[in-house]
Amino acid sequence: MAKKQLGPTTNLFPMPAVLVAVKTGETSANILTVAWCGIVGGNPPLMALEIGQSHYSTPFIDREGCFTVNVPDSSQVVGVDYCGMVSGTTDPHKPATCGWTMTPASKISAPLIAECPLNLECRIVKKVDTGTGMFYLAEIVETHVDEAALAGPKKINATALDPLIFTPDGFYHKLGARVAKAWDAGKALRS
Amino acid sequence: MAKKQLGPTTNLFPMPAVLVAVKTGETSANILTVAWCGIVGGNPPLMALEIGQSHYSTPFIDREGCFTVNVPDSSQVVGVDYCGMVSGTTDPHKPATCGWTMTPASKISAPLIAECPLNLECRIVKKVDTGTGMFYLAEIVETHVDEAALAGPKKINATALDPLIFTPDGFYHKLGARVAKAWDAGKALRS
Repeated sequence: MAKKQLGPTTNLFPMPAVLVAVKTGETSANILTVAWCGIVGGNPPLMALEIGQSHYSTPFIDREGCFTVNVPDSSQVVGVDYCGMVSGTTDPHKPATCGWTMTPASKISAPLIAECPLNLECRIVKKVDTGTGMFYLAEIVETHVDEAALAGPKKINATALDPLIFTPDGFYHKLGARVAKAWDAGKALRS
Repeated sequence: MAKKQLGPTTNLFPMPAVLVAVKTGETSANILTVAWCGIVGGNPPLMALEIGQSHYSTPFIDREGCFTVNVPDSSQVVGVDYCGMVSGTTDPHKPATCGWTMTPASKISAPLIAECPLNLECRIVKKVDTGTGMFYLAEIVETHVDEAALAGPKKINATALDPLIFTPDGFYHKLGARVAKAWDAGKALRS
């Protein structure tokens, strides 16, 4: 295949489209949409997540030392996009605007979005200074999942969860069909 | 919806299924499959990527100070799974086993997988010690993309790219249908 060089870019495919929620006051919360994140450790579970330091939520995240990562389903795309377009400075009531209910987490001060089928409670371990920016390294201290998406005591069925996917061409997608089982399909190449 | 608590887990949906390639000798390379990664900065583009420190590739990655992140298409799933199952200690010729061609990168010593429609050249900025493990923070210094997946001078059409997706329930998926356009669908909630 013929290839073209694009220079340095952030073209990783796919990306998650997650909702980061933080406590902003005794009865208020803000939500912002993040696609630049990923798991970077398993024991304990760790996530790296980039949040621009000039965002409305940033001082609240730093003050509380925690946030929740809420995985929306594909039906929630309008709210997900809204929370990525509009700052909490403009709309300090984004949860209500999106029609979402904030409920208490079990281990941290940041609230969960009740309507999202998967919620991860994240406690900040450190802010990593990259020289040109910052990202958060956070420990996932609790997981809440819609019972309807459970495929076993601890296993979440991805198709039932119906997570929203972001791609760097600027579109949201649904998760597509299963292609193969992991730690299994590759056996065909073992000699 | 009724929710269940699962404790601390690494249940982020979706994850990319990428092939990390590294130079192991003058004419040899190794490939390993990684799902624990994400973009964590834009200027310059930065990626965080977890690679177990006991992997065959690790000393080579550390020696070379670089690796490539190769985004496979969904037809390459058997090789992708193989490279996640079998160590380079067992098979030091994984590229040949998978039927893949290694070609030189433009800015780093790690080779590209020619058959993958997207290749990112990554130079390690630092290894971040998390206390219980390590992950790599790497700068994406060059992007190579299949011209057939280009939707504009710098834009990659995700559907044409057909990236492979990993989900923590242990399955690979295709990218599904577009749900909405980003920075657009959310306008419906703007007052």
